[in-house]
This record gives sequence, structure tokens and C-alpha cells, in this order.
Amino acid sequence: MSEEVKIVEVGPRDGLQNEMKILSTEKRVELIRKLIGTGLRFLEGGSFVSPKAIPQMENSDEIWDSLRSESADLCFLVPNQKGFEVALQAGVKSIAVFSATSDAFTRKNINRSVEESLDQFEPIVGEAKRKKIRVRGYISTVFGCPYEGFQDPKKCLKVTERLFKMGADEISIGDTIGVAHPRQIASVFGLLKKGFDIRKIAAHLHDTRGMAIVNIREALGQGVRVFDASIGGLGGCPYATGSSGNVATEEVCWLLEGLGFKTGVSVARLLAVAAWVEKEVERALKAKFYLSGPKHLYYDEPQSME
Amino acid sequence: MSEEVKIVEVGPRDGLQNEMKILSTEKRVELIRKLIGTGLRFLEGGSFVSPKAIPQMENSDEIWDSLRSESADLCFLVPNQKGFEVALQAGVKSIAVFSATSDAFTRKNINRSVEESLDQFEPIVGEAKRKKIRVRGYISTVFGCPYEGFQDPKKCLKVTERLFKMGADEISIGDTIGVAHPRQIASVFGLLKKGFDIRKIAAHLHDTRGMAIVNIREALGQGVRVFDASIGGLGGCPYATGSSGNVATEEVCWLLEGLGFKTGVSVARLLAVAAWVEKEVERALKAKFYLSGPKHLYYDEPQSME
Repeated sequence: MSEEVKIVEVGPRDGLQNEMKILSTEKRVELIRKLIGTGLRFLEGGSFVSPKAIPQMENSDEIWDSLRSESADLCFLVPNQKGFEVALQAGVKSIAVFSATSDAFTRKNINRSVEESLDQFEPIVGEAKRKKIRVRGYISTVFGCPYEGFQDPKKCLKVTERLFKMGADEISIGDTIGVAHPRQIASVFGLLKKGFDIRKIAAHLHDTRGMAIVNIREALGQGVRVFDASIGGLGGCPYATGSSGNVATEEVCWLLEGLGFKTGVSVARLLAVAAWVEKEVERALKAKFYLSGPKHLYYDEPQSME
Repeated sequence: MSEEVKIVEVGPRDGLQNEMKILSTEKRVELIRKLIGTGLRFLEGGSFVSPKAIPQMENSDEIWDSLRSESADLCFLVPNQKGFEVALQAGVKSIAVFSATSDAFTRKNINRSVEESLDQFEPIVGEAKRKKIRVRGYISTVFGCPYEGFQDPKKCLKVTERLFKMGADEISIGDTIGVAHPRQIASVFGLLKKGFDIRKIAAHLHDTRGMAIVNIREALGQGVRVFDASIGGLGGCPYATGSSGNVATEEVCWLLEGLGFKTGVSVARLLAVAAWVEKEVERALKAKFYLSGPKHLYYDEPQSME
């Protein structure tokens, strides 16, 4: 029996909220259905933010309504108390909260220090747990901050500890600007696995420098078994030159399946969904595996990849 | 003391011969000088082919004339007896010959079977060795052929054996269409290290599916210490949608230096040369590290990268 790895598909939220083209609620529902059809069981469904701030995520409650009976864990981002109330109203079963290691980053994004952002989420997470809602915590800028640069791994340790103490079920460690090197992956996850249950920790990597796949390889070696990824590499400020986004789900699954891990996801089907998404977002995706096409899908022997 | 890894810069030959824009002899000399300035000591200088067939490589003998006094090993591709005579005339000290694992591939490219291509090179390599000229052998399509698909690793073993027997000093194992998975890297180099001195074997990887860097990580684990790479990912049919070429030298050096290997090459200087090359080839390079820019150059602590 091969070991299972959990893939968290973040395309419908972290991906789409960074795309210029705004997809209708129906299209977003269709995307999530297609993604579930590839075998994915954990997906970000949307975000309960103001549609004025992020119009890409409007009507996330309707997305939940349309998909609540699907056999998949759909997670919704909750930025504050108000968003949490909408989440409760909608009856979602999984939410995500977020902070970072860098005060400069949280101040710039949510006008709070890291500590203040955690103070704000503490009662939300407590209330969610009492209501049996699963909680995922995101920590941004763990490997580098656009304003502060290098981040000491101990900062991540501190934020992780606080989020677990609040009651978070899983914590996703983010390389927000995609600068991590395998050496840094080893330091950070090496520290985390000493202090916490590594099975509850995810790696959220961006492929900005083309290092995401080797970083996942390194994280696997450190015991990480949960990886965030985005179909076709969706997201990541695609219009800014030099910026590229989330690591592509099809590349992550291709790597993992070939290494003998079981993702439950079909790479061939992911490539087909990426082609559909590319038309919908109306811009050329840049993820290399997708661009190279669905030919020659084999590892060390010819095989069917369906 | 950190272990040394040899980088073979193939941008000026394998890179440029696949670019639409033809660089003048002077520009190619300038490029090689700049590359040597980054610390690179092994480079492809050009190819003794007909300028009618490959105008990008015209006057490769002049390139050698201009650069013969540089403290770098400049290698020139020799496709046949006629090319070898030009090489001898020019007085180069390093040549490269090439074959593949796939008969369909060699037939399509040089109208010969693999065996026939090796028969043709045998006297050339013999003569080169008698004249104390270093010989590099390239083997294409080791991990997959565009016409035949999957390739049995034993085919590579057979071609490698024959090339070493002829007298080749180093053999470069090519993932020509960029389909290799780390699992296949492990099988192929695992076999090769059993039969041959792995220090004389190079990995020549393409980043078509975004797997080149993780494949290099895997090859390192198998004992490979010679890697081919191309500045800024130059080459690889850049105008064909979905095609991408050689792994970028700056990404390879970034990976290796951070893992504690010594390449002798400055990543910051490579990024500057990539910017220069991009202007000269008049098309946007796609290599991710280059696109993301020279900011945040650190591994697990802040450091100077010059």
C-alpha cells in the first residue's frame, strides 16, 4: 500500500482572487465540480470578504449552497468577525484564518501587527471549534517577506504554536513570495516537526523561482504530507512581470504519484481542467507541465495515467 | 570544504542554435566572455555544422580564435567527419559528438540508426584522442523520444558503453523532450553508476514540465556531479507553444550553492548576463528565477550573493 498525501486545491480561492478576470458564481461552482471530478477531496471554495474589496470572491455563500452535498471538504476564508458571521449563517463546515511571520506584511495588508491579527482570530477560532467547524490557519511570508526580506524560522514556530493553541486543526506554512530554497524548507519544517504533529502541517509553496517542486520533495523528506496547490498554477498576480503564483496541482500530483505516494487525483484529468480554466480566465497559463501537454505520461515504464 | 560540482554552460551552442534571432560572431564571443566572468569554466563554444543548415552557429572557428586564450574549456560540436576536419584545422581542444537511444530520433535527425551514428563517430573519437583532444558524448532521448515515447534505460547503458569504449572522456545523458520524472532519473543514473565512473557522466535536463530542478536534486543523490545548463533557459524552440528548453544555469547554481555544493559561479552575475542575453535574442525569456528578479537572494540566513 502506498502512503497517502493530502492535496489542498486552492485554485478556486487563492488562485481566482488573484486573477483579473472575474468568474461568475456559476462558473466557480462548475470549476469546483470539475476539480472534484479529478479526485480532489480538499478544496478552497471561496472567501467571505467584501465584494468591494475582492469582487472575484462575491457570493461565496452561494458556492457553498450549491456544493454542500458534494463529498469534498470545502474551506472558506474568513478575514474577520464579520466574515465569520457570514460563514456561520451559510453553515460552512470548514474555515480558514490567516496571519504571517512579518509585521510589515500584516500591517500593509490588514493594518495590524502579527500579534494583533492573532488576537482578532482567537475568539473566532474558539467559537468555530465549539461549533465543530474545522479550522485551517495560514501563515504567510514564512520564508521571506517582500518588505522585511529574510524571516527567522523561529517566528513561524511562534505563530504556529499560537494557532494550534487556539484550536486550529491544520496549519499551512506559506512561501508567499516564492523565495524558499530546499535548505530553508529543511530548517523550517525540521523545526516544526520537533514541536508539532507534522501531519497537521501543510506546505503552501509558490513557484516564483522554479523551486516549488524541489521544495515539495524536500518537505516530503521532512515528513510533510499535506500540500496546497492551484490548478494550472492559477493566481499569483499573473499580470505583473516576473511574478508567478501557486505551484500547479498537476505538477505536484505528477511528482507525488511517481514517487509512489497516493494522491487519489488523476493528472490527465487535471490537465483537462487546466485547459478549461485557461479559457475561462482569458489569459495564457504559464505552468510548464500544462503547457507541454498531455503527451508522454509515464514514469519509469509505459503506463496508463487515467 | 564543500564538494565541487561541474556546470557545463550550453547556452552559446544548444541554447542559441534553437533561437530564431541569429547573433553575430562578435556577440557570441561577448556572451561567452560574460559567462566566463560569472565563474563558469566549461562552456559549449559553437558547432562545426554547415551554416546553411544552422546559420546560428556560423564562424564557430572564429569564436575559438577569439577565446582560445581564456581560462575555460570551450567545447565544439562535431556532427561528422567534415566538421571534425574543421575542428582540427581550428585547433580546438574539446569536441562533442552525439547520438541517442532512439533509432526513430537519429533517423529523423541525421538519417542514420543509433548504431550507424556510433559507427560514424568511432574513427573521429579515436583520432581526437590520439591528438589529445577532449571528447564529450551526448546521448539524446534517454528518458523519452518524441516518436518512440518511453525508452528502456538499458538502451542508454549500451550507447554509454560504446562511447566510453571509443574513448569519450565524459558522457552527457539527455532528457531531450523534458519528460523525465525523478523516479526515471533514479533508474537511469542508478544503472549508470553501477557500470561506469559516475564522475564522468553528466545530466543534461530540460525543464519542459518544470521537473528539471527536482531531477537534478535526484541525480545528485545518485552521485552525479556534472550538470549541463543554459543561461536564462536559452533555447528549446522558444516559439513553439508548450515547448521550453534547457534548465536555466542560474536556477541550477542557486539550487547547488544552497545545498552546500561549490559551483564557482555567481548567481547574481548570471542573472545580469541573462538580462543582457534577453535583449540580444529579442524575445522574453521564460526562466522563472530570472523573471522573478535578483531580489531576496538568501538561503537560510541573510547573506551576500556576489
